[in-house]
Amino acid sequence: MTQDNSSYDLHTRPVIALMTDYGIDDGYVGFMKGVIAAITPDALVIDITHTIGPQNVLSGAWILASGYRYFPKNTVFVCVVDPGVGSSREAIALHAGDWYFVGPDNGLFSYIMSEQIIHAAVLLKNSAYHLPTVSATFHGRDIFAPVGAHIAKGLTGIFSDLGPPLDPASLERLEVGGAVRDGTTINARIVQVDNFGNLITNIPLSLVPELYAVSHVQILFKEKGITVEKLRQFFADGPDDGQAFIYGDSSGYVGIAVRNGNAAKTLGLGFGASLALIMSER
Amino acid sequence: MTQDNSSYDLHTRPVIALMTDYGIDDGYVGFMKGVIAAITPDALVIDITHTIGPQNVLSGAWILASGYRYFPKNTVFVCVVDPGVGSSREAIALHAGDWYFVGPDNGLFSYIMSEQIIHAAVLLKNSAYHLPTVSATFHGRDIFAPVGAHIAKGLTGIFSDLGPPLDPASLERLEVGGAVRDGTTINARIVQVDNFGNLITNIPLSLVPELYAVSHVQILFKEKGITVEKLRQFFADGPDDGQAFIYGDSSGYVGIAVRNGNAAKTLGLGFGASLALIMSER
Amino acid sequence: MTQDNSSYDLHTRPVIALMTDYGIDDGYVGFMKGVIAAITPDALVIDITHTIGPQNVLSGAWILASGYRYFPKNTVFVCVVDPGVGSSREAIALHAGDWYFVGPDNGLFSYIMSEQIIHAAVLLKNSAYHLPTVSATFHGRDIFAPVGAHIAKGLTGIFSDLGPPLDPASLERLEVGGAVRDGTTINARIVQVDNFGNLITNIPLSLVPELYAVSHVQILFKEKGITVEKLRQFFADGPDDGQAFIYGDSSGYVGIAVRNGNAAKTLGLGFGASLALIMSER
Repeated sequence: MTQDNSSYDLHTRPVIALMTDYGIDDGYVGFMKGVIAAITPDALVIDITHTIGPQNVLSGAWILASGYRYFPKNTVFVCVVDPGVGSSREAIALHAGDWYFVGPDNGLFSYIMSEQIIHAAVLLKNSAYHLPTVSATFHGRDIFAPVGAHIAKGLTGIFSDLGPPLDPASLERLEVGGAVRDGTTINARIVQVDNFGNLITNIPLSLVPELYAVSHVQILFKEKGITVEKLRQFFADGPDDGQAFIYGDSSGYVGIAVRNGNAAKTLGLGFGASLALIMSER
Repeated sequence: MTQDNSSYDLHTRPVIALMTDYGIDDGYVGFMKGVIAAITPDALVIDITHTIGPQNVLSGAWILASGYRYFPKNTVFVCVVDPGVGSSREAIALHAGDWYFVGPDNGLFSYIMSEQIIHAAVLLKNSAYHLPTVSATFHGRDIFAPVGAHIAKGLTGIFSDLGPPLDPASLERLEVGGAVRDGTTINARIVQVDNFGNLITNIPLSLVPELYAVSHVQILFKEKGITVEKLRQFFADGPDDGQAFIYGDSSGYVGIAVRNGNAAKTLGLGFGASLALIMSER
Repeated sequence: MTQDNSSYDLHTRPVIALMTDYGIDDGYVGFMKGVIAAITPDALVIDITHTIGPQNVLSGAWILASGYRYFPKNTVFVCVVDPGVGSSREAIALHAGDWYFVGPDNGLFSYIMSEQIIHAAVLLKNSAYHLPTVSATFHGRDIFAPVGAHIAKGLTGIFSDLGPPLDPASLERLEVGGAVRDGTTINARIVQVDNFGNLITNIPLSLVPELYAVSHVQILFKEKGITVEKLRQFFADGPDDGQAFIYGDSSGYVGIAVRNGNAAKTLGLGFGASLALIMSER
């Protein structure tokens, strides 16, 4: 594109990323985008996913954590997994790292808060940035979408006007660390099952730098009596007999997969399963 | 955005909203967007939903009705739930209220026509606005998408050129009223089951202004022998024993929900179930 | 739009179309779009579908083939159905016909290569166009999305810089022809089951120009002992007793449907079923 026909300042085009548990059937997400279009029509709106398990805040927190770093600086993430909608839970916005986050104060941003510097946090009390009528059950449309659209338009210039500042230490946080290393054993659990049936653990690859260097690695699911022992770099390199194997997932965590198959179904394991990864020389 | 790097006239950027029963698996919606991009590449295209129950015109009509007001003025809605594609049913466009609507003349716009002033209606007979070759089975791609893209570009300036004008009274309409109030009893039915399993009735909240003021409210499903009696403002306030409760849905209609649960599954009820809402002082 | 508030050169706005088997639940597609937004924020990104059967390259190839012609000239298709990710399979880009294609060299572009002139093909070896860190399992995010975004920005100007040129004859191709005409009998198979349960064959309508002129047409599924005999122009014209019928699908191929029903379920047939279409005068 020449300068003549490219008019956006490419570094300032507003980007809004949406993540909800609203599903794709009811039009809810479309209505949020209608609200955004009326406020910031030049925003680029990107869907992360809308099929977070209904009201599964921890799963939503993990999926957001697995990819927010791939979005441009100043992207506004509008995230709604919100079992407490309409109750005493607060609506908040964060400016953390290079991004903005809008949603309920229920722990959905726990990973963000543990990984990024929080520059500012506000309570979304200024109704000038909400729709004129706010329903009791659809804050995604009535509060979070319009607030996100206004932030995308004005960024820090608007942030402090959204409501009173919050002490980040007062915000709700879920336990998101979890993986504990004791010598060469890491106690952990499955925090995500993806579309291919890959089981993703909460063990960051950075916690096991010697993973591909040691002579023997195994993952034990004691309660189920299951052991996974092969270690592979990529899927096509997995055993072709349908056996599960351990690999470094693209999310930055240790995963378990079956080549051309579904590890979750093969092993009968899912979200939350506890495990131990053990590395040894033998 | 300063004037220098914002080039859109923010009030005139064309917006097209899509709603179909094409599903998300086959690429059909993507091909419609390809057609739109070739005609009006600067349009903002927003998906409402593409998983309307196959050929369920009434369900599509309701979902459109529950949210079109949240879209910017001049949004062009291209809606295709079209069991009669290729037959004698007509292809139409409406200018109603502040918006434009394009789709089959089969009742899909029944709520719109009952709620908005119809400024103009046309039969889509001018093939200059269609694709050069029109298939017998995919008018979404071959007629509705290109017509919608042309309207989005030209608005009223193009509308009358799309084909001969229609008398709005001649258009197909479904029975969409339905909820009938007789004293303090309203006979109605379930018109939508959302992603959370909430059951939405066709009782507008405006038909029961005293809902939250009377001392007792119940909804009876006579055929099923089911009674729902609790009334709540929002989900988190619902009974925590899994009992269903009545609430004012964000769509503007009375609904039935289960806290952190699925009312449709819990009660064994779905689309079309008839009911009576009864308000009393006791 | 007047010239004053329309700033895009409407013929050069970059368009990127995405097709994957990543599903819609995990955020993978959203992260690809985040990567694209950071490189070419003014691109119009269009989803074809993300629910190709996991690792079903042939199905992905067919869906792409059924609609790429509807996209604007210079659209960049980023397609990922990639069981061999991380292995020795190569990452490639093609300039074929009026479009660009980016993805794995595993046959996903077989129809494109059989239908279009290939102007150039390159191996994606220049890491300057990839993300700084490339994972072993998510080349959609780390290689294909950024390469597609760079092509969309620079088109042919950038193409030859992506890596060494490839001889198109050396690229992986799947058997995509298949339908063989012998007199008035065509031996073929089902290559797609769409959202409505319509069964699409690999018989191009151009291979049977007399389809609607002959007095008798039937499709035999010998192995299943099933015969379909009615021929119709469109769905609403189908038998109303639930019998399956033959029609010319909007993809340009012969299909089988049930009016207001699901042919795949009714007949118990699916992807891959072999068949014979027989035309006769009697």
